[in-house]
Amino acid sequence: MIRVLLVHDACLLRSALAERLAREPDLEVHHSAWRGAPALARLLSPDVCAADLDCSESYGIAPLGELTGCRPGTGKCRLLVLADAHRPGPLKRAADANARGYVDKGGTPEQLIFAIRQVAEGKRFVDDSLGFSFLRASEMPLTRRELSVLSLAAEGASVSDIALRLHLSNGTVRNYMAAITRKTGARNRVDAIRISQGEGWV
Amino acid sequence: MIRVLLVHDACLLRSALAERLAREPDLEVHHSAWRGAPALARLLSPDVCAADLDCSESYGIAPLGELTGCRPGTGKCRLLVLADAHRPGPLKRAADANARGYVDKGGTPEQLIFAIRQVAEGKRFVDDSLGFSFLRASEMPLTRRELSVLSLAAEGASVSDIALRLHLSNGTVRNYMAAITRKTGARNRVDAIRISQGEGWV
Repeated sequence: MIRVLLVHDACLLRSALAERLAREPDLEVHHSAWRGAPALARLLSPDVCAADLDCSESYGIAPLGELTGCRPGTGKCRLLVLADAHRPGPLKRAADANARGYVDKGGTPEQLIFAIRQVAEGKRFVDDSLGFSFLRASEMPLTRRELSVLSLAAEGASVSDIALRLHLSNGTVRNYMAAITRKTGARNRVDAIRISQGEGWV
Repeated sequence: MIRVLLVHDACLLRSALAERLAREPDLEVHHSAWRGAPALARLLSPDVCAADLDCSESYGIAPLGELTGCRPGTGKCRLLVLADAHRPGPLKRAADANARGYVDKGGTPEQLIFAIRQVAEGKRFVDDSLGFSFLRASEMPLTRRELSVLSLAAEGASVSDIALRLHLSNGTVRNYMAAITRKTGARNRVDAIRISQGEGWV
């Protein structure tokens, strides 16, 4: 039996998908919203965590590390992510978190079931349709520091707030914001935030 | 038989939910992403359109009008929406589009099935758990004009872009932005956009 933890924030959709998965004779399926998922993963130690990269909390950034970090070094609890082909940012975060499976949410439950079995056997799985998104994810133009500045700006922090939080001078923050605007091809700061949120970078 | 069109952008989740609904003997279920949903609704003339208020295109704003407008005056194609209790903005838009059913995405497929039957019989259905969200939706502080200004600002338009698009002076746009920032309790313009997007107003 493959023990699966399905993570998605909308119970209505999650429970229907869980029910579909549970009809497979080799899958034992549990499900949870993101909130509560790390605790449940620790409790159940599933073979595969199939987690939607969309998260309705934490500014939409799914706490993937909390899910994979629950059994360090055991090689258990392999991460498979449900991804949106139009949003390369979360895909990049999933790769950083060492996800083993990448399933396109535009696909079918049967594809997900196939991917779960592959990942449970220790194999990798990447949906063909996500290839171009990985390419775009690799082209993310911002540095880690610029992303920190941009994330704070997107939360509504002013230049001096950001300077204070990141221990920088106001001038340096302004330089970062100018670089971010230029690199993202944006018209201005608000536009840079919009573009970056659209790509899922912040 | 009740003919249902289920609208949700992620095929993986939508098809599992559609399969669950189709197990009910009185439901004939079709499903689609938002793109293509209005055309399919015109083709099928379903008794109930059960549509997720989240939409991955049009800046996340679901084109509800296109769905209900497809059979004007016939009383057919009743709209039921799948809503997130934390986002009152889309709920308000659903009410403006005369949706008859409001189902919390935090609920179960059984609740949705109950709601579909109610709406198909011409009754209204509102999930208890959405009550507080409706209250918050009714408290949306911005005028229609302010929302237009804010939507353009959220797209990255500058003050002069907005002035040009809405046939206003730059000073008037600045006054609107100041009013928006004050009314939303924001620290600045970016913060006002963030708050308003969080509530789902723009």
